[in-house]
Amino acid sequence: MKRFLKLSTIEEGKEIIKKFLEKIGWEEVDLFESVNRVLAEDVVAEMDVPPFDRALMDGYAVRSEDTYLADEDNPVILKVVGSIRAGDSPNIEVKSGEAVEIATGAPIPKGCDAVVMVEYTERDGDSVKIYQGVAPHENIQYCGSDIMAGELVLRRGTLLSPRDIGALAAIGRRRVKVKRRLRVALISTGDELIDPGKPLEDYKIYDVNTYTLAASIRERGWDFKFYGIVRDREEDLIRTVKRTIEDNNDIVILSGGTSAGRGDLTAKVIEKLGGEIHIHGMKIKPGKPTVIGTVPGRDGTPKLILGLPGYPTSCLTVFNVLFGGEERSIRGHFPLRYMSAKGRVEYLPVSVVRGSEGYTVYPILKGSGAITSLTYSDGYVVIEESKEILEDEPVEVCLFGNIKFGLSIVGSHCIGVDIILREGNIYAKTINVGSIGGLLSIKRGEGDIAGIHLLGENGEYNIPFLERYNVKDAVLVRGYIRRQGFIVRRDLPLETLEDILENIDKYKFINRNKGSGTRILFDKFLKERGIDRSKIKGYNIEAKTHSAVGMAVATGRADIGVGIETVAKQYNLRFIPIGEEHYDFLIRSEKLEDEDVMRFIETLKRVDLPFKKPSNCGEVIYKC
Amino acid sequence: MKRFLKLSTIEEGKEIIKKFLEKIGWEEVDLFESVNRVLAEDVVAEMDVPPFDRALMDGYAVRSEDTYLADEDNPVILKVVGSIRAGDSPNIEVKSGEAVEIATGAPIPKGCDAVVMVEYTERDGDSVKIYQGVAPHENIQYCGSDIMAGELVLRRGTLLSPRDIGALAAIGRRRVKVKRRLRVALISTGDELIDPGKPLEDYKIYDVNTYTLAASIRERGWDFKFYGIVRDREEDLIRTVKRTIEDNNDIVILSGGTSAGRGDLTAKVIEKLGGEIHIHGMKIKPGKPTVIGTVPGRDGTPKLILGLPGYPTSCLTVFNVLFGGEERSIRGHFPLRYMSAKGRVEYLPVSVVRGSEGYTVYPILKGSGAITSLTYSDGYVVIEESKEILEDEPVEVCLFGNIKFGLSIVGSHCIGVDIILREGNIYAKTINVGSIGGLLSIKRGEGDIAGIHLLGENGEYNIPFLERYNVKDAVLVRGYIRRQGFIVRRDLPLETLEDILENIDKYKFINRNKGSGTRILFDKFLKERGIDRSKIKGYNIEAKTHSAVGMAVATGRADIGVGIETVAKQYNLRFIPIGEEHYDFLIRSEKLEDEDVMRFIETLKRVDLPFKKPSNCGEVIYKC
Repeated sequence: MKRFLKLSTIEEGKEIIKKFLEKIGWEEVDLFESVNRVLAEDVVAEMDVPPFDRALMDGYAVRSEDTYLADEDNPVILKVVGSIRAGDSPNIEVKSGEAVEIATGAPIPKGCDAVVMVEYTERDGDSVKIYQGVAPHENIQYCGSDIMAGELVLRRGTLLSPRDIGALAAIGRRRVKVKRRLRVALISTGDELIDPGKPLEDYKIYDVNTYTLAASIRERGWDFKFYGIVRDREEDLIRTVKRTIEDNNDIVILSGGTSAGRGDLTAKVIEKLGGEIHIHGMKIKPGKPTVIGTVPGRDGTPKLILGLPGYPTSCLTVFNVLFGGEERSIRGHFPLRYMSAKGRVEYLPVSVVRGSEGYTVYPILKGSGAITSLTYSDGYVVIEESKEILEDEPVEVCLFGNIKFGLSIVGSHCIGVDIILREGNIYAKTINVGSIGGLLSIKRGEGDIAGIHLLGENGEYNIPFLERYNVKDAVLVRGYIRRQGFIVRRDLPLETLEDILENIDKYKFINRNKGSGTRILFDKFLKERGIDRSKIKGYNIEAKTHSAVGMAVATGRADIGVGIETVAKQYNLRFIPIGEEHYDFLIRSEKLEDEDVMRFIETLKRVDLPFKKPSNCGEVIYKC
Repeated sequence: MKRFLKLSTIEEGKEIIKKFLEKIGWEEVDLFESVNRVLAEDVVAEMDVPPFDRALMDGYAVRSEDTYLADEDNPVILKVVGSIRAGDSPNIEVKSGEAVEIATGAPIPKGCDAVVMVEYTERDGDSVKIYQGVAPHENIQYCGSDIMAGELVLRRGTLLSPRDIGALAAIGRRRVKVKRRLRVALISTGDELIDPGKPLEDYKIYDVNTYTLAASIRERGWDFKFYGIVRDREEDLIRTVKRTIEDNNDIVILSGGTSAGRGDLTAKVIEKLGGEIHIHGMKIKPGKPTVIGTVPGRDGTPKLILGLPGYPTSCLTVFNVLFGGEERSIRGHFPLRYMSAKGRVEYLPVSVVRGSEGYTVYPILKGSGAITSLTYSDGYVVIEESKEILEDEPVEVCLFGNIKFGLSIVGSHCIGVDIILREGNIYAKTINVGSIGGLLSIKRGEGDIAGIHLLGENGEYNIPFLERYNVKDAVLVRGYIRRQGFIVRRDLPLETLEDILENIDKYKFINRNKGSGTRILFDKFLKERGIDRSKIKGYNIEAKTHSAVGMAVATGRADIGVGIETVAKQYNLRFIPIGEEHYDFLIRSEKLEDEDVMRFIETLKRVDLPFKKPSNCGEVIYKC
């Protein structure tokens, strides 16, 4: 049972979109409205910029030959025969031995061929002392030297930046022809979808694609109109698509549904409306179930109908691939092994970390069913159809629009870090990979700071692990002391550690991810007490953060979690302590002088945290 | 006479702006309006995403243990006890030997722990044949595996991208707190300024800064209001600034004037309005005459008053430096020698060319008086205060927003190239450096295609130069044949080459830039005819393009120019031929397979050009 008989290539898809976009007409806009619009004309200058020879400095316009002998000790004295301000007419002719006071931007008077900067002059009534000679042409901006009449200033197709708009203003253009704003109709399809902001019904999910697409359309400077969530019935869909066409939209995008059958439905709608299907299935991962067709508009011009896949990550990826965008890329190293999709070009979302040796590129492996695959990625790596394995090799990362490298804080999650970042006003990317993950990232020279709390066999925190893992070129900065323990719902009859131990197989637990300090503590606890892991319900359910544990217990999804006291308080849950631990910061040595890192440590020392601070908080306690 | 007694550092300036911006409050917006806004809250998930365990594929939900023995030849047959679509309630319990038909996104019914993809099944009435076994958990997306309740989804300060908005939609957020849009008042100052679109008066120039600033403000998603061009009088300025404060703007930017004295005027206005001056002069090049102050608003909250330098390049550079922005940078090689400003941090605009060995970074040396310094730059290199010389070394280029590397076409300007790019719909950066400059750029491995027309001593075109300059790893593709000659105003009594030769010292010429093929042709012509260059008026006035020559003659700025026939026709000027020449394309060998290069050659062959095409047009005629 194969639904996609002949998959089209990405190039075929892009070509259809490109041709369609080329046919969109132009409109004229005021210069104030022109930023980020696409120029629809070649702009040729009809005037020179500047339109006359003008002074580049405040000073005195002179005949340069008069000043050749001037120096600090032997100033040349010239007679000042006038003064020209910017905007004035230069109706003075300067003769030998004369000068004219001139302001920056003012026209150069006849007879002069240079301007002496005011800093090298001293005015004395009707005359001026010149303390430094000037060469011919010095400090003069000649007519047409910036832009010459007849020059092609901007080419059709330019995405107008403030700098481009400056050139348009300089040649006196007030209005420009730009590509018309595209009108895009958005239709969400799917019985399971609910609009964000409305209460979520059982077994429904919130509509995501409408919002990611709307934002992407806005980002491109286009207009959208949302036609609502339509149920999965052909008649409903046909009625809505008809309405979008009556409204004279250029493009209609259907998305939201996840089932493969929905692509067929889009195709059927296109056929029923007398349209043509160009693509039904595309060789791309994610995004195979993509449909592209056209339907005749009211006046006969074709309207593009796009059926995008339902998974948010697939949907947005296909949209971005088809409609292109800014193509900024960086090269980085892919340190792992990854098996790619056969027979399709794969767009693999990745996270980029800037280290001492360049960029390291990590795949984000949540799958296209997860929206956060994209949210937490910096871009993607394109793996060609013929390539099956990506392994320990350089890759090119196509970056998303607004990547921002701040501090890279890896390791264990702690709300203390959130507070420090907020209070210190430090921009950072936090990657919660647990204490061990953070330690390894610092060792590899990728992350800047890792928050770690690792209990060694000897009861000492963190330092034994730095030795065991042979970490180099890093320092350990003392952080704060946290109380770890069980986080328990208040309505349960569990008040002491003994209560828990006696009932350990009766309640639902929520665990932390492998490699997290809390997980190590919990495993050590179980081992010391001789408790069999398999007896613990929920042992394999892993939350990535303390807060997620708190929320799981607070909402009753679990009865007992393991985590820090602060979180138990935050969610008003019972806390049964297991012990105290040191949460410290492992920092790459070469980053210690970094402004943000210094501010981080300074903020750690300064602010109130909901944890106990030892007297040496913020100090380097170990160098490796 | 020093006006800037104590210059402030860039860091001091940035810190003032940063602190001011932090105090701007927030507003709540609908998700549809949230793209590119700055999040003003930490967003914590209050629900799990997905909110229930769901199918990742269309297929059959099963107990995985039932399928272990299934393979192509020995399918397992299960009884189908129901069907669940996305959005349905899963009110079925599946027992051993049973399966439920399930759609992507539908909830997993009780008893099942995996989904078999529909591709590996065959339905037969009430039962289904399973042709491939599944492992536990396969094709199920577990509740909370994308986002877990309690997780910090997005941090305050995030610039919301479509991907972030997707995460907000997924957790049901309809409205978000974002930083309020800043309200910026723009005032242009200067007696010499005219609004673009109005006729230009003598010795005036068009206002540029208002438009570059407005566009930059728009790009940041802020609002602006333009208060017009104000003359350089204190009373006028005070009146207008008062009005901007009554209108409750957050920031007032004064710019436009070029004179150093204008900074003092801004400072005076701030003082007269009871404000405070924080910075008067900054250690930055360009942009020294920057003034930053605050003036109390109606309700006492301080309003920021910014006096920016008048030169467009200085003005926009200082704005961008102070207000920050996306910090994307690339590393490249700076191949030349450049002396930097002492005692100031210099922001040097540069052009970046992507070559086989990485990026090459060229300074743009038109000076801050020229707007095109920025228009035609890709970014800037920051040269620290202490560094005096930049020479043949690696540099970091901070890129402007919308850089786009297409084909890099260097060399001689020809409207034929413009036509090919347009008709072939090829995006390219054209750098008009003349034929020799183009040839050298290809030799260095920077440019992709160079248009060249170089007349060798033996009368042969182009090939002798490839040999003389020892160009390697490139091919010469035959282009077209152009007629070169004198371009003359029709009202002059010059009809033949003899007329020109007899009157060569009587008329104003406009020349082409050094290194251009036309210049070489003209110089050879003068030499052969034994004409002294110094006799030619305007020999040193250099236009960069053929069109600029045409425009100069058409508008009477020059009487005679040298250029191609096509341009003479375009401007309806007389054309007196000197000879025919081959305009060919030098292409780096490794780029011959590049899609855009292939399209360029194909378009060259295909389209009608206003030039004669030889029979071997588009063919490789020489390999080096």
